Amino acid sequence: MTKGKKWVLEKHFQGMPKRSDMKIVEFDIPPIKDGSVLLEAVYLSLDPYMRPYTATMPEGITMIGEQIARVIESKNTEFPLGTNVLTHAGWVSHSVSDGKNLTKIPPYPKGVPLSLALGTLGMPGMTANYGLVDICAPKVGEVVVVSGAAGAVGNAVGQIAKFKGCKVIGFAGSEEKVTWLKELGFDEAFNYKTIKDLDATLKSVAPNGIDCYFDNVGGEFSNTVLNNMARLGRVACCGAISVYNDTKPLMLPAIHGTLISKEITMTGFRVVSYRDRYPEWIQRNIQWINEGKLKYKEHVTKGFDNMFDAFMGLFSGANTGKAVVEV
Amino acid sequence: MTKGKKWVLEKHFQGMPKRSDMKIVEFDIPPIKDGSVLLEAVYLSLDPYMRPYTATMPEGITMIGEQIARVIESKNTEFPLGTNVLTHAGWVSHSVSDGKNLTKIPPYPKGVPLSLALGTLGMPGMTANYGLVDICAPKVGEVVVVSGAAGAVGNAVGQIAKFKGCKVIGFAGSEEKVTWLKELGFDEAFNYKTIKDLDATLKSVAPNGIDCYFDNVGGEFSNTVLNNMARLGRVACCGAISVYNDTKPLMLPAIHGTLISKEITMTGFRVVSYRDRYPEWIQRNIQWINEGKLKYKEHVTKGFDNMFDAFMGLFSGANTGKAVVEV
Repeated sequence: MTKGKKWVLEKHFQGMPKRSDMKIVEFDIPPIKDGSVLLEAVYLSLDPYMRPYTATMPEGITMIGEQIARVIESKNTEFPLGTNVLTHAGWVSHSVSDGKNLTKIPPYPKGVPLSLALGTLGMPGMTANYGLVDICAPKVGEVVVVSGAAGAVGNAVGQIAKFKGCKVIGFAGSEEKVTWLKELGFDEAFNYKTIKDLDATLKSVAPNGIDCYFDNVGGEFSNTVLNNMARLGRVACCGAISVYNDTKPLMLPAIHGTLISKEITMTGFRVVSYRDRYPEWIQRNIQWINEGKLKYKEHVTKGFDNMFDAFMGLFSGANTGKAVVEV
Repeated sequence: MTKGKKWVLEKHFQGMPKRSDMKIVEFDIPPIKDGSVLLEAVYLSLDPYMRPYTATMPEGITMIGEQIARVIESKNTEFPLGTNVLTHAGWVSHSVSDGKNLTKIPPYPKGVPLSLALGTLGMPGMTANYGLVDICAPKVGEVVVVSGAAGAVGNAVGQIAKFKGCKVIGFAGSEEKVTWLKELGFDEAFNYKTIKDLDATLKSVAPNGIDCYFDNVGGEFSNTVLNNMARLGRVACCGAISVYNDTKPLMLPAIHGTLISKEITMTGFRVVSYRDRYPEWIQRNIQWINEGKLKYKEHVTKGFDNMFDAFMGLFSGANTGKAVVEV
């Protein structure tokens, strides 16, 4: 009997996650029943949401997350041996499923890697579509600001906004990331860590105000962007990575007055509420990739035992593009 | 030659407006030219927006505001003697207009007072329609919270939400106001000044969360409501009267995380951006008044010289319903 491995959340994270908050546990892989399949992880996803979502979950759980897995034993005709699936099994090397919560990954066009099912063709890509196209609904010539722009979601947002005819301004956390954003066609890209005066910078690159803000970071940064919105601006609140590790609530100037005087709409969203639209968005993203309009980058860490280090890369800014672990 | 009177904003308000920030100035009413009319104020409106909007206007201006005026001299065939109009002439007893920015007030059904053109059949009534029906879009059985519920906008919001089949919870600033809200059919009404624990109160009257929040007050109160929203809740940000007189920005816990986790939409709006829809909303409100579904209350102060005192009533909570001055 082979052993499986899983990452257990021993203690709730306090502030920045610590290695000692988690442990790797070995377990016996059970024999599968009729109707079930045994899955082996191929790529595991690392996403910022894992930090806030686990805060209200019990200690001792297997760390949450999505993965691309392969069927290595099957007693379910729907999922024959070798089928690639998406599963929310968490940070585990092996899992058993009755197939109900598995999503088959369709064959991708030549040259498109399987791992994109966790990135541009997965949840982050869906998030970019819903948040930008549905919530922000940018019009040709409008100004779009993206924070966390070199992340899995942000880079897709910026590229889509750009080929939809917008002026796109991205913020990321290193010179390398800024260079990449410019390669992707962003009109302006800045390193938020070294920028002297965010307010002045926004006023200079968006003198008539920002029409759409795709917000991956929250916090004070986002309040400064909000103060530079144009009338009838739209904000897609996607993530707040800048505050996920705070141990007490960040205090910021009240925004009600700004929302009213500028007639701004802020919409918080979780793309999983729109699963029924994933097939449409996946097709659209595949088409954009084929047309060369939508590029992607992955930050691949090798080895299941390195999950925690890869996770920390989300907060330290070590990752460019989509962070995955290859088993 | 008759003299006119106007209220001049001598100094920007700092904190709570002071009588010495304003002065009454007499002026000569000029003879009118061909195509013009001379207007005499009949009812002048007092609205919270006057406080924040003047902050960015130059000192020395005539105080801003809308009024119902009557044509007392006419050289414009479109506006014969005796015509009742709405004008944004400000806090003035007499004004001259070429007719371009005047809105004729149509005859109302019997029993409906002319002054409602500044209240339920005017800007506040339009605000209630747009903010509640368009932004909040409450469904039958949903929970709607209204702050500033005994004000010109809030009472209409609550009544409309009620006859649209919602559970309506109102907050106002005195026992008399609470009693009136209950008479109007609010399911729950509270005096926010004496309530012990807003958070606990909201949890007890809306155990499954608040679907719609019509926000007239902003500030900490509104953040507590936000924390009690249901998934996919909608917030119409209409006013922030609780902070209009603050001299420094109120600091509040950042809300990005709440917006995301609960998938909330917050929309700031100014109803004047939707003027083309006023005729539709006025007809609808008249119909609701005729059907007895939409009641109204006015707080009438007599005398042009009492404008300032009536204005202060907005902030002290002295007014119930729509505040107007009758000349």
